[in-house]
Formats: sequence, structure tokens, C-alpha cells
Amino acid sequence: MDDRELLKTVMKIVGEENCKDDCAILACGDRVMVATTDMLHRTTDFVDGMTDWQIGWMSAAVTISDIASMGAEPAYVLIAVGLDRWEHLAGIMQGAQDCCRKFGAAIVGGDIDHHHELTIVTTGLGLVDRVHLVQRTGAWPGDLVCITGTPGQAQAWLDGYKQFEKALFEPQPRVAEGRLLSRSGVSAMMDDSDGIALSLYDLLGVNSCGFSLDSDKLPLPEGIPEAQARELAMYGGGDYELIFTLPPDRYPVAGVPCTVIGKVITERVVLVDGKPLQKRGYQHRWA
Amino acid sequence: MDDRELLKTVMKIVGEENCKDDCAILACGDRVMVATTDMLHRTTDFVDGMTDWQIGWMSAAVTISDIASMGAEPAYVLIAVGLDRWEHLAGIMQGAQDCCRKFGAAIVGGDIDHHHELTIVTTGLGLVDRVHLVQRTGAWPGDLVCITGTPGQAQAWLDGYKQFEKALFEPQPRVAEGRLLSRSGVSAMMDDSDGIALSLYDLLGVNSCGFSLDSDKLPLPEGIPEAQARELAMYGGGDYELIFTLPPDRYPVAGVPCTVIGKVITERVVLVDGKPLQKRGYQHRWA
Repeated sequence: MDDRELLKTVMKIVGEENCKDDCAILACGDRVMVATTDMLHRTTDFVDGMTDWQIGWMSAAVTISDIASMGAEPAYVLIAVGLDRWEHLAGIMQGAQDCCRKFGAAIVGGDIDHHHELTIVTTGLGLVDRVHLVQRTGAWPGDLVCITGTPGQAQAWLDGYKQFEKALFEPQPRVAEGRLLSRSGVSAMMDDSDGIALSLYDLLGVNSCGFSLDSDKLPLPEGIPEAQARELAMYGGGDYELIFTLPPDRYPVAGVPCTVIGKVITERVVLVDGKPLQKRGYQHRWA
Repeated sequence: MDDRELLKTVMKIVGEENCKDDCAILACGDRVMVATTDMLHRTTDFVDGMTDWQIGWMSAAVTISDIASMGAEPAYVLIAVGLDRWEHLAGIMQGAQDCCRKFGAAIVGGDIDHHHELTIVTTGLGLVDRVHLVQRTGAWPGDLVCITGTPGQAQAWLDGYKQFEKALFEPQPRVAEGRLLSRSGVSAMMDDSDGIALSLYDLLGVNSCGFSLDSDKLPLPEGIPEAQARELAMYGGGDYELIFTLPPDRYPVAGVPCTVIGKVITERVVLVDGKPLQKRGYQHRWA
């Protein structure tokens, strides 16, 4: 059993429309509020070597990335901390606060709990004008498929390439890029936190078109044998790049360094170099 | 080290104003949005015998209670579930959904995670008109101190009085009461989830007055020796009653069954029968 299978259970109960995007979409006066929540914990997210400050930073960054992927501006963060040892709290809160400040959000609330395993849940609230809201739906045949930055670096650290520590320990959500993209006619967007492949399958699930990638175009982390770098970029987790679709006449977008890695096609499949892309990446699994 | 000591660490980093109430207070168009987050998990919150449905219900109820205590109407809930076994999810989500529906909220988002210990974090968003927002601050000497319902029942179950199972397993947040009270001139309010005593000390910390209780006036759970019942009502956790202060000329409030248990005094102390009240109740502690 994996998390995407389980999401179907949730959809049946709370409705499909509440499970489609990186954030929930709520009315807030004449603007849109987007809301998202993310659980991280020691055994699966906070690897050995991370400082408390980095743990706090990462916890805020992952939820801010979801806000960025809707084209919204991070506004508020709530943080629930399940602490195994109380000594961790100050560093964690400082890291979360510094991340929030850097990306324009404020920590406005939270909860302190005692837990056997350090567990942090951040909830992010962002704001965006209705016309600038970007969702996972909206991809259109002929659009370009693009990605910011160099995916695969976080997974590269996990696979032993220690020069990529910052990429995994201190992710930098693409808030400025998301904001610019939302004003530039991007048709669909999400972050690639579970890898490019799973992200495209998520987009496939909510759009009535498909995606065709050209593996030669993937930007690859440096200093890694090419085949492995390609594997990391396509299937690795822990990155917080934006993957998005864009009408060709809107490319390039000023101020948003990104790479065209494929195009949107009418056929409802995900292809790489003309063949079906494997549907795998970062997933939670249960026996 | 306990959670209230740790909150001082958090205040230094994120600011005192973000740690004062049951909910954060955010502008949302011309209304106020209140936001709160709560972590619950197996070893400390979900006792043996609770069904998955009840676990989901409780998880939603605790956050809805925080919204009620601000006089607000629950609108949206996000739920992050760290699952030890995937089979729990459907029941949990149904319980959370049923609780949200009963109190007027919708589940709009969430996260599914794999965790060694079942851990659920709910985040609640509520709406209220500015003039009706109630906070922990605002108590005034001469006001009555009141409480809804019969406190101590949840703790009574934990202490072996199994007739109180529903009180602990299926808490009913006082949403309708909170809404009526917010329109009736209540001066300060919070929920009593950590017990009456700690709630009054929390109110003491943010108000410039004190509180004097009359132990004879405490409504007590039935079928329990009086001294024990009094202990449970004053110091027990797991209840979700509203404790509030109210100018005497506003009492009683139509539609809100409640008991006057004391009054607000100028001296900055919490007294019971004229003597200092012990500062203890439901708290998280670390070695």
C-alpha cells in the first residue's frame, strides 16, 4: 500500500476536489487563501547530521514550497512540534522562523507536544489574487514542460554525494519564481518533492492530456556518472523545484531560470524518449 | 521542563503576541480568520479502546474547540496523519469528517505520512466578525467566572469511571455556545482542555487581574466521591468546556447552560476558597 493509493480512500470521504492540488483553495475576502499541511519526522525526513536549525528550516520550507507552487505569497505558518527532547526546541523554532522570514511569512501559532520521535507538522497559509492562482490542472497539448533548478541533488546526498548537503538540509522553496510564473501564463504547476516522474503522474491524474519528456534535456547534478545523475533527477525525492507547463510563446519567463524538458501531448500517458516513464519515486509505503 | 516553560522559549523567537490565544488571529477581507493546530498521538492521546472513527473525531474536535473558544465559526480543517498501519485511515478520516460536518467545517486538505506511532495533527481555520472575536485577554474585576457543562468527566474515565467514555472519546466542542457567548458581551474566553486550574493560570498570565473561585460552586461529575470529583473537575484534562468571564449584568446568557464558579478580582492571583489554587493539570513534561 502506498500514499497515492491511500489518497483514493481519503477522496471517497472528503471529496476529490479537496485532494487535487498542493494546497487547498479558500476564499478570503476578494483574494484567494491557499492552505497546506506537511508532516516530517526523524526516521524518514530528518537525516543524521542535520542541526536543529536545519530541521526547523526544512519543516517550514516544505510547506512554503507548496504555497509557491500555487503562485501564492506565503503569509502565515503554524507549527506543531512533537519533541523527544526539549533542548531541540529553540534551534528548531529559530530555523523555522528564519525560513519563514526569508520567504515573507510569519509564524503565528503552534502546538508543543511530547513525542517519542521528533515530529513536526507545519501548516502554511498563502495569499494570491484570483487571476494569478495556478493549479495542477490546466496543462494543454503543445505546452512546454519545464522545471526550475537542478533536480536530483537532495537524493544525490542520500546516495552518498555529500557535496549536495545544502540541497537536502536547507531546501530553498521557489517563492519568487512561483510568483513570476503565476503572472506569466503558466498553465499548470506543482513542486517536484516526490521526484519528476511521480509529479508528472500526479499531473496526468488531474489533466486530460499527457506528457512527453526528452531525457537528454534533463538538467543533471554535476560530478555524478551520467546514468546515475539521470536516475536521481527523474526519480529522486527531497527537491523543491517547480515543475510547470507553459504555452511556447510565453517562454522564456524573465527572472525564472528553468529548463524545457518536454512537452504536453494529447495522449494520456507519460513518455520519456517515446517510451512509458516508470511510475516510481519518493513514496510512503505500508506493509 | 513543561510545555508552558517551553512556550517562553518560543515567545522569544516568534513574539509573545503569537502565543497568547487558543488561535492565531489573521485578517481575511473584512472578517477575522482564526487559525489553530493540535498534535495528538497514540501514547498520550488515543487511549486503548478508542475506535479509528473516535480517533478521527477527537482529532477534529480538539481543533474545533479552539475555534469555538474565540467565538468563531469553524470553516476549514486540514489533517496530517502519520499512519502506523494503513488500515486505520478510512475510519480516522470518516470520524474527522463527521465531526467537521457536525460543527460546520469542511476538510480541505491534508498529508499522509508513514509513522511508527499513529500521530495526527489537525489545523483548524474559523471565521468571525471583528466585533465578535473573543480572546483570552479582556477579563475585568467584578466579572463572573463561568464554565459550560460538567468538567472532569474525561479525566474521570482515565481514573476508572468507565461511564464517562463518551466524554473522553467523543468530545463535543462548544461551538454553538461559543458563538452565542461572543455575541453576549463575554470579556475573555478559552477552552479548559488542560483543566480549570491551568486555564485560569493561563488567563492570569495575559490579563492584569486575578480570579477567585468558590469550590462549592464547581459542577461535579456524578457518581464519584465528592473530594475526588472536585479534584477531577479542577485539575483533570481532556475536557473541552469553555471557561469565560462575563460582566454580571450579562448573566445568564440565553441558550448557554453554564455555571458561575467565581469572580474576577483585582489582585493578580488565582484563589480557591480564599487560598492560592495549585498550578497543576494536564501538561507535557520532558526530563
